[in-house]
Amino acid sequence: MTYRPQLTEASVDLTREVEVMDERGRVSLIAIPAERPLTVYVDKRELVTLMTLGGAPEALTLGYLRNQRFIRQIEDIVSVQVDWDVEAVAVVTRNGIDDIEARTAKRVVTTGCGQGSVFGGLMDDVAAISLSPDARMTQSTLYRIIDTIRTQQSIYKQAGSVHGCALFSSTGELLYFVEDVGRHNAVDAIAGRMWLDGMRGDDKIFYTTGRLTSEMVIKGGQMGIPFLLSRSGTTQMGHMVAEQLGMALVARCTGKHFLLLAGKERVVFEPHLLDGVLKVA
Amino acid sequence: MTYRPQLTEASVDLTREVEVMDERGRVSLIAIPAERPLTVYVDKRELVTLMTLGGAPEALTLGYLRNQRFIRQIEDIVSVQVDWDVEAVAVVTRNGIDDIEARTAKRVVTTGCGQGSVFGGLMDDVAAISLSPDARMTQSTLYRIIDTIRTQQSIYKQAGSVHGCALFSSTGELLYFVEDVGRHNAVDAIAGRMWLDGMRGDDKIFYTTGRLTSEMVIKGGQMGIPFLLSRSGTTQMGHMVAEQLGMALVARCTGKHFLLLAGKERVVFEPHLLDGVLKVA
Repeated sequence: MTYRPQLTEASVDLTREVEVMDERGRVSLIAIPAERPLTVYVDKRELVTLMTLGGAPEALTLGYLRNQRFIRQIEDIVSVQVDWDVEAVAVVTRNGIDDIEARTAKRVVTTGCGQGSVFGGLMDDVAAISLSPDARMTQSTLYRIIDTIRTQQSIYKQAGSVHGCALFSSTGELLYFVEDVGRHNAVDAIAGRMWLDGMRGDDKIFYTTGRLTSEMVIKGGQMGIPFLLSRSGTTQMGHMVAEQLGMALVARCTGKHFLLLAGKERVVFEPHLLDGVLKVA
Repeated sequence: MTYRPQLTEASVDLTREVEVMDERGRVSLIAIPAERPLTVYVDKRELVTLMTLGGAPEALTLGYLRNQRFIRQIEDIVSVQVDWDVEAVAVVTRNGIDDIEARTAKRVVTTGCGQGSVFGGLMDDVAAISLSPDARMTQSTLYRIIDTIRTQQSIYKQAGSVHGCALFSSTGELLYFVEDVGRHNAVDAIAGRMWLDGMRGDDKIFYTTGRLTSEMVIKGGQMGIPFLLSRSGTTQMGHMVAEQLGMALVARCTGKHFLLLAGKERVVFEPHLLDGVLKVA
């Protein structure tokens, strides 16, 4: 059976009601998403502060450590203990983080939001990634996924201003759904859950509400996932990396509409699904 | 007259055409925004790699150095020279960056997108920020701004997948408009232009297409701007910091609709503007 570190199951309010005034001066209460710092301590050493919604702090911490390549295998993690009273998570490892000095020094040259946070270190890894060449997704599976997301209960529907990520099976069954204030936190939390469950990405389908930028495509590739879907668009570098990886990049997924930008051979078209569907502009 | 460092005016393609296939298998060309690394060298030392659209690299570099508090005054900068052939910008300073070792070491604990990139260092500064107590914005100015953004030529309209930021005068005159793949780059580029032009923020109005998260509110505060507008929403921490700063936080700005979340006393309501306007849900 799969190894699992000791984990807390810390929970905290994900939305807060605030008073707002509209254009007519009418006062009402609306829900907004929580956003709070979570400072990660690894073997009692402060590593990073993540700004998070707080919905999946243990998985977020694990996925962050994995995607930043701090810890190579889940077996090296003894425990992950979140304490919201002090807005911190304590991670205990078996052997610590290899040459953490050098690693963190390296990360100094690549920080920020759309400011290359994960880019520097990870672009080197892209060459080493190989995605399952045979993985295919049918158009009906794609539509099942779009519809599942559309009807999914979410913080976004209650409060807006969060990004959602989801992992689906090759037949479009929802496996994980995570929301966070930052799209990178949401993808890291999915990576953490996959790691915990020993789930491979090689026949899975990843959906994000966020844009398909270089960082998202690289993270999807790191997780070994050959399909990356978004309701939003992509960028030149996201497109370039997806082509390099042979990843199916599917943007603008809404209703029956989508735009396939890379890995075209991975999508199995089923034209009959569109019989009677009005042409989408 | 205002001091200006020597600057290049490097220009580069901001969009690229790529072939896409839609749900009916129809192939067409669409424009997507460029996304490219820009590695910042300060006095020949590599500091950071920014992933950027490339529309305002000199201003982005200046604003990054300012908002990250690496350089305190524009007079300390001799030159900013962008060379897209090597995807780099060379900054020459008069006196270097104070205790850069310690500064960059500190930033290691706060990285990433919605992962607290600017938060760690900057939350300390919030207490020191004081916004002009008397600054007011009329409802008609707010509507002028919303309409100006609606009609603005933009990469977003051509290619999607970018964030836009704009700075407006107290009467709603557009001063700067910058787009980038990351909303933090766009706000940094605006900060860079303000710095170059010696423009104070204390009666200005800042608009962003992005969400009003803690990092955006803190950056607006750093720039001394008492009004922060968005077509999007906010988060609990963004709301909290805005209340702490006494900043007017206006979300969901579309058409005649908006939601005022903080700094309510700064907005002058003009109910007559809504005569004959259908009630917005």
